[in-house]
Amino acid sequence: MAVRVFGLPKSTCTSRVLLVLEELGVEYELVPVNFAAGEHKQHPYLERNPFGQLPAFQDGDLSLFESRVITRYLVRKYGKDSGLLKETAPEEAAAVDQWMEVETAQFNPAICAIVFQIVILPIIFGGTTDEKVVEAQLDKLGKVLDVYEARLSKSKYLAGESYTLADIHHISYIHYFLTATPHASFFDSRPHVKAWWEAISSRPAIAKITAGLSFK
Amino acid sequence: MAVRVFGLPKSTCTSRVLLVLEELGVEYELVPVNFAAGEHKQHPYLERNPFGQLPAFQDGDLSLFESRVITRYLVRKYGKDSGLLKETAPEEAAAVDQWMEVETAQFNPAICAIVFQIVILPIIFGGTTDEKVVEAQLDKLGKVLDVYEARLSKSKYLAGESYTLADIHHISYIHYFLTATPHASFFDSRPHVKAWWEAISSRPAIAKITAGLSFK
Repeated sequence: MAVRVFGLPKSTCTSRVLLVLEELGVEYELVPVNFAAGEHKQHPYLERNPFGQLPAFQDGDLSLFESRVITRYLVRKYGKDSGLLKETAPEEAAAVDQWMEVETAQFNPAICAIVFQIVILPIIFGGTTDEKVVEAQLDKLGKVLDVYEARLSKSKYLAGESYTLADIHHISYIHYFLTATPHASFFDSRPHVKAWWEAISSRPAIAKITAGLSFK
Repeated sequence: MAVRVFGLPKSTCTSRVLLVLEELGVEYELVPVNFAAGEHKQHPYLERNPFGQLPAFQDGDLSLFESRVITRYLVRKYGKDSGLLKETAPEEAAAVDQWMEVETAQFNPAICAIVFQIVILPIIFGGTTDEKVVEAQLDKLGKVLDVYEARLSKSKYLAGESYTLADIHHISYIHYFLTATPHASFFDSRPHVKAWWEAISSRPAIAKITAGLSFK
């Protein structure tokens, strides 16, 4: 039986999981969640994810939530030889963990707030973008990308010379940032960051999933 | 040569690493960082952690930052048989990852904001606690602890019947919350959460490190 992902193609966290499934060539079923009707905040969805967020995941008897936990599981279960986690040596694995955690703790809070203000708030919630929040978060994102620029001047990908889960975890939000905000210059002006994005966004497994990343 | 941790005993993220070192019985050297003088925001510390946060870590040629990355590395390198990560089977490992991610994404943002407002802001920065922020974050923390209460009514520890890294990652902030804020009832009023805290806080490896958790 195929694994099941409960979520939506336009959801950044759902698509983080779908990108890994496509990369690994694992058969899956995407079970849509009626976000507009608040299905994710009600039972029975809350039994899948008690925090009421997308996505949730099922593989046989195993039920999981939190996109970055699901992707790690998928690589371990279905992609041991993919090199996406490099768990054969603790030092190599730590490099992947390092940049996955940077994505979670440094990169994501800033880019998530910007995409929310410019894309999600007006389109989904009918709200008005708070330009002060955007400005403050762009400042933070710029500083994070300066660290990335320095890092990527020494290695092709974040965790070294090969593509890993640390790179994949960034794709959904960067795609929204570049296609739906007027701030693409944040990436274009940093040559190593730009080359990195070109390398990871041109992978064959990406196009099908990023095509679903639209709130329009 | 002993591994080196660059940080401070009172720092929650430094102590997260120290708790794991004590639990595993790994020899280490704690190299103090002059936080008051802003040493963590200057070179050469920024070469250890480009985001200027505590702690940083060195083991031979390997340099790491982000406490949760360091703890994972330590278990893999020095505690393979400790059971703290359960990485022998993907399903078991996913349960540990699941609750480590819940700590990062749900628990930590709320409790961190509360401890900052009540403990760190007045004592370190001479500021005034914003009661509205405290109230909003207590509301969030309560909802997170309700999920924990349900979870811990089914298993002794977060990831199952044995103590793991998912439990350890919670200790520093809960210690501050219980000893330095007036809101201990949040834990006392939830019997399974209370029993869990009693189980994990009574472990022998804990006392030496939690003794250092004070801003007074």
